[in-house]
Amino acid sequence: MRALVVGRWQPFHNGHLTIIKEIANDVDEIIIGVGSAQKSHTLNDPFTAGERIMMIIKTLKKFGFPYYVIPIRDIDFNALWVSYVESLTPPFDLIYTGNALVRELFEERGYVVKKPKLYNRKEYSGTEIRRRILNNEEWKHLVPGEVVEVIDEIDGENRIKRLSKKDYLI
Amino acid sequence: MRALVVGRWQPFHNGHLTIIKEIANDVDEIIIGVGSAQKSHTLNDPFTAGERIMMIIKTLKKFGFPYYVIPIRDIDFNALWVSYVESLTPPFDLIYTGNALVRELFEERGYVVKKPKLYNRKEYSGTEIRRRILNNEEWKHLVPGEVVEVIDEIDGENRIKRLSKKDYLI
Amino acid sequence: MRALVVGRWQPFHNGHLTIIKEIANDVDEIIIGVGSAQKSHTLNDPFTAGERIMMIIKTLKKFGFPYYVIPIRDIDFNALWVSYVESLTPPFDLIYTGNALVRELFEERGYVVKKPKLYNRKEYSGTEIRRRILNNEEWKHLVPGEVVEVIDEIDGENRIKRLSKKDYLI
Amino acid sequence: MRALVVGRWQPFHNGHLTIIKEIANDVDEIIIGVGSAQKSHTLNDPFTAGERIMMIIKTLKKFGFPYYVIPIRDIDFNALWVSYVESLTPPFDLIYTGNALVRELFEERGYVVKKPKLYNRKEYSGTEIRRRILNNEEWKHLVPGEVVEVIDEIDGENRIKRLSKKDYLI
Amino acid sequence: MRALVVGRWQPFHNGHLTIIKEIANDVDEIIIGVGSAQKSHTLNDPFTAGERIMMIIKTLKKFGFPYYVIPIRDIDFNALWVSYVESLTPPFDLIYTGNALVRELFEERGYVVKKPKLYNRKEYSGTEIRRRILNNEEWKHLVPGEVVEVIDEIDGENRIKRLSKKDYLI
Amino acid sequence: MRALVVGRWQPFHNGHLTIIKEIANDVDEIIIGVGSAQKSHTLNDPFTAGERIMMIIKTLKKFGFPYYVIPIRDIDFNALWVSYVESLTPPFDLIYTGNALVRELFEERGYVVKKPKLYNRKEYSGTEIRRRILNNEEWKHLVPGEVVEVIDEIDGENRIKRLSKKDYLI
Repeated sequence: MRALVVGRWQPFHNGHLTIIKEIANDVDEIIIGVGSAQKSHTLNDPFTAGERIMMIIKTLKKFGFPYYVIPIRDIDFNALWVSYVESLTPPFDLIYTGNALVRELFEERGYVVKKPKLYNRKEYSGTEIRRRILNNEEWKHLVPGEVVEVIDEIDGENRIKRLSKKDYLI
Repeated sequence: MRALVVGRWQPFHNGHLTIIKEIANDVDEIIIGVGSAQKSHTLNDPFTAGERIMMIIKTLKKFGFPYYVIPIRDIDFNALWVSYVESLTPPFDLIYTGNALVRELFEERGYVVKKPKLYNRKEYSGTEIRRRILNNEEWKHLVPGEVVEVIDEIDGENRIKRLSKKDYLI
Repeated sequence: MRALVVGRWQPFHNGHLTIIKEIANDVDEIIIGVGSAQKSHTLNDPFTAGERIMMIIKTLKKFGFPYYVIPIRDIDFNALWVSYVESLTPPFDLIYTGNALVRELFEERGYVVKKPKLYNRKEYSGTEIRRRILNNEEWKHLVPGEVVEVIDEIDGENRIKRLSKKDYLI
Repeated sequence: MRALVVGRWQPFHNGHLTIIKEIANDVDEIIIGVGSAQKSHTLNDPFTAGERIMMIIKTLKKFGFPYYVIPIRDIDFNALWVSYVESLTPPFDLIYTGNALVRELFEERGYVVKKPKLYNRKEYSGTEIRRRILNNEEWKHLVPGEVVEVIDEIDGENRIKRLSKKDYLI
Repeated sequence: MRALVVGRWQPFHNGHLTIIKEIANDVDEIIIGVGSAQKSHTLNDPFTAGERIMMIIKTLKKFGFPYYVIPIRDIDFNALWVSYVESLTPPFDLIYTGNALVRELFEERGYVVKKPKLYNRKEYSGTEIRRRILNNEEWKHLVPGEVVEVIDEIDGENRIKRLSKKDYLI
Repeated sequence: MRALVVGRWQPFHNGHLTIIKEIANDVDEIIIGVGSAQKSHTLNDPFTAGERIMMIIKTLKKFGFPYYVIPIRDIDFNALWVSYVESLTPPFDLIYTGNALVRELFEERGYVVKKPKLYNRKEYSGTEIRRRILNNEEWKHLVPGEVVEVIDEIDGENRIKRLSKKDYLI
């Protein structure tokens, strides 16, 4: 059995890792979709798809389970989205999502959709982690060590801080 | 004389029907543009272009007047929009719209633009009808019977309710 | 039962009309997709979607059967095409096509695909009709009278002749 | 040395002109990018790219310095934007911008980014000028005379006023 | 009076220059559209829009007449093309083109279209110049000196030769 | 050191596998780009990106080396392509390609480009394998066993045969 889980992973954090590991117990292979792949360099979506893929693959390397990581860009045409995802991924049997739209689109196509269990949602949250980075608060304990390394390699903390500078409109 | 009227028809309701019938008295043929054709499965735009076309055609079948129903997607390039509409439709002589942008774009191209008369705007309103569906209030008397049938066939009430579920972000 | 038939209708001719009328005998409603809707003003695709829609609707007006005419643009992403068509049209039960790709895409999605019977393929052919227009040969007996009227209204014969002029490259 | 400066120029005003003239003192050639080129006919972006280009070229004609004016549409893919700009313009050595995102994208690619000095930001502001046009207040002293001429030629004051009319939704 | 002339200018050569100078005698301002702006790095279209703009502007600097240079990308939707060009350029009164499609599209919109006079078409031809570059034959006398400089600056001769290398498919 | 190799992998065959294994000896990590990701269901590009990714990942599972598989769609804008690839992948140090255009684009951006060594090019070729499938000749010994399994699972042999059927144009 193969399952799909789609997220933005901005960045990939310990809550994500726990979810992925639990799904890995239930299925044979996981397809990890990297959503909004075309987005980067904003406060909400600071990391490119390539950077997010690197975070995920470096983190999961040490766990033995089989998985695929696939970037998926937004197409702004909801009625095509399921077909779009299907064309980019191996066939899958069920989807894990907490997003009402994704659930609706897949259920209308006859897929089984499950809700992943969340842990410590207040801290294990991309929004919270980006907020902490911006405010020089502790954040590194909320993500896997490999994600810290990737963010360091691309100077991600400073990217977020620079992007938050007030514009100076000409 | 041929007239164009563009709306989103989310869903097609009795106010729409009254407008269409009045325009039908004034012109030989009506072109009904289904705007934002690429949108569906959101609370604001729950129905696909195909579903909306079906509502309109089933409703108008019993009236004898000639009309065309054409899906028109957003192109996010206002200066091209009039040409885009012209390329998809038979030639037309005047436009009925209450939208300031549509009026401006067509008037700059030399078209005659008229305002349709509205009836009972508080209830005959897509926003109001979607709100009632969401809140389990009466709505079926606000739309033609054929629209009720289409919404039933596609399980539209539940689609809207499911799309309103709070997200559960991973 | 509702059937879909997709063509380019460049222009709509007597062979097309015979096919549509035969399908109308077999099903309750026909959806006529106007393919390559974004194309016009070339020797292969001289007429806009709007012009082709006008040809079809004017021709079919006198027959009583119910139908929909929907423009469908090319999306150059075969794996999305079936979903794209589904989003723009009412639900349908079977497809009539002689195109191998369209057949494959719909059959992989579980649709029933039928081949329409063709009549006098040598003359009832868009290619042949465009060739005759270009060479000042007889063509008007190959299309319905309403199509002659539309082509006259838009000065279509001269459009085709002008488009065939040799380029004079700067 | 060649410098790039990107703005929306909705419309081109005296503050813009001062900045351009100062940059012209520092470099050999200026490339003036007309951003959001696809936008027009909204209250925030009333003028087409063609109209904005005309404002700039007519204004700068009397100054002797060499420059290029290039329309640049939004591509909604930040990681591609620098390459996109590079493909449309002559090579440049530095960028003038006050926008945090533009700064970040170009600095990550190794470009030198400078902040232009602003003058009288409260009045020399596109937002303020559009607000004044809408409210029938004095605005013509805030833009070069050539810009007044262009806005008059296209009846720009009335376009803005008409676009602000309340919608009358069908 | 303002005239539009659209070409690909791959590269800008002496035949182009003669045409532009003759048009400059007849009109007040010339708009030079750089067509297929998105294309580059192929044997048919080796130069980016930015490189072609640089060729044109450097060459025309020494002639006193006023002109605009505007990149125009292909949109593969003929019925929108005139509006697209209009949105990117100042208003114009006539078009110079030898291309049958461009002539047809503009004439259908009511524009006056003229044919530029060509000189020495066998040698003053982009195709011929690219062929000579590829085969190490003389070509520099066929283009303005400024174009030679631009092609040298970007190492254009070698780009063309490298692009012609036989593929070695994996 | 990380290397990028881009191919269409229609299908992934023994020649591809040999190349990948050799590159794996030279670098720490390989990024395998799946080019023309949007294409499928044609005789030249029969398999979807998802199907090709499955072929690659299933085949490489038994070799220990680290790699990424990333779908990359065509963007028809050569000057953006390097940035596009960079945005979707982890950073890389060199590229393996035999394609002249890919080589040129990456070398102009300062990348090191290498040619992979090819083996038995006549038989280890996607074109040859697709030809054999179409003609009922032996082909399974030319691809890894896992690829045979994927093609069987999706009924790929019959898809290719069905796509080759002569069209029967309406």
